[in-house]
Amino acid sequence: MQSEPILQDLIQALRCLPGVGQKSAQRMAFHLLERDRQGAFKLAQSLAEAVDKIGHCSVCQTLSSADICGLCSDDRRDQQLLCIVETPADVMAIDGATSFKGVYFVLNGRLSPLDGLGPADIGLDKLVDRLKMGVIKEIILATNPTVEGEATAHYISEMAKKYSVRATRIAHGVPFGGELEYIDSGTLSHAFSGRSEV
Amino acid sequence: MQSEPILQDLIQALRCLPGVGQKSAQRMAFHLLERDRQGAFKLAQSLAEAVDKIGHCSVCQTLSSADICGLCSDDRRDQQLLCIVETPADVMAIDGATSFKGVYFVLNGRLSPLDGLGPADIGLDKLVDRLKMGVIKEIILATNPTVEGEATAHYISEMAKKYSVRATRIAHGVPFGGELEYIDSGTLSHAFSGRSEV
Repeated sequence: MQSEPILQDLIQALRCLPGVGQKSAQRMAFHLLERDRQGAFKLAQSLAEAVDKIGHCSVCQTLSSADICGLCSDDRRDQQLLCIVETPADVMAIDGATSFKGVYFVLNGRLSPLDGLGPADIGLDKLVDRLKMGVIKEIILATNPTVEGEATAHYISEMAKKYSVRATRIAHGVPFGGELEYIDSGTLSHAFSGRSEV
Repeated sequence: MQSEPILQDLIQALRCLPGVGQKSAQRMAFHLLERDRQGAFKLAQSLAEAVDKIGHCSVCQTLSSADICGLCSDDRRDQQLLCIVETPADVMAIDGATSFKGVYFVLNGRLSPLDGLGPADIGLDKLVDRLKMGVIKEIILATNPTVEGEATAHYISEMAKKYSVRATRIAHGVPFGGELEYIDSGTLSHAFSGRSEV
């Protein structure tokens, strides 16, 4: 087809979005050009600005446009409570859903020797420096309940022990609204072993 | 949450894409910033360029960065065959799937009196001018098989009659790979009334 190269470029560029294949990208391109040029213009600006300005917080490693992010520099938050998560998206999820008022530390990954990811690659040296400062009283491990996530949580809890900092792990069990019948066996056995007094 | 306003802007801007809600937009924003900044940069550029440069072809009304699009200006294509479609996406679909070597006319809509869309709004005055020129020998009506699409096709076929131009309609029936059992009754009755000699 003697097609418009600029349009083809746009379709190709849209495919960098997660979950967007050729068909969805075409649909998006036509939608933007035919029905929402203002939205497309705004999106182009927002993308350029975000790529240009957003880096990582030098304290907690989350995404931030400032050297120190809004969460770390907020003095109403409890600097003695440190929640460890794998990604900036986890920070957003936890901060949106819970009343946690401590600070975060984002690993931007997890220990994964097979992929060549060691402690330094996920910023654990930075975490050690922070533990040494003696401000932190409790570390809350909120890595994902996967093999690597659990291993990472275990590794960090050992680190915390060395500096006499309390380490806790978020609870894993049957999710609210879940039906026992359809819960996988791993979760169910975890829910039993982790039962608590009512 | 003391969240990054630039990040929130990006998430909001991504929601202009069709089928993208809050959660998908978040996922896209984090994916781009953490894993594909180059893709994000390229996308920003492509969007800005497309919005800036792509307009409508002055001959066939499809999306084009030139005054006359590549299809209309291609002299290997048969200017006597004119295929009428509703959207530029239809041009791409037909040109990708068929061996049609004529030219197109894009209505950018369909007759829809309830929405206040009359013949002039979908460029039918332009089509009349083209019919008057006497170059076109056959009009192929490829509007969608909806009520409005059918009405538009009928209206244009009447127009074509006035200028003694042959008007044909693409076939509607059971799609390839479709199973009769699951085909809607409208399509099935259409397939029967439109049967042809084998």
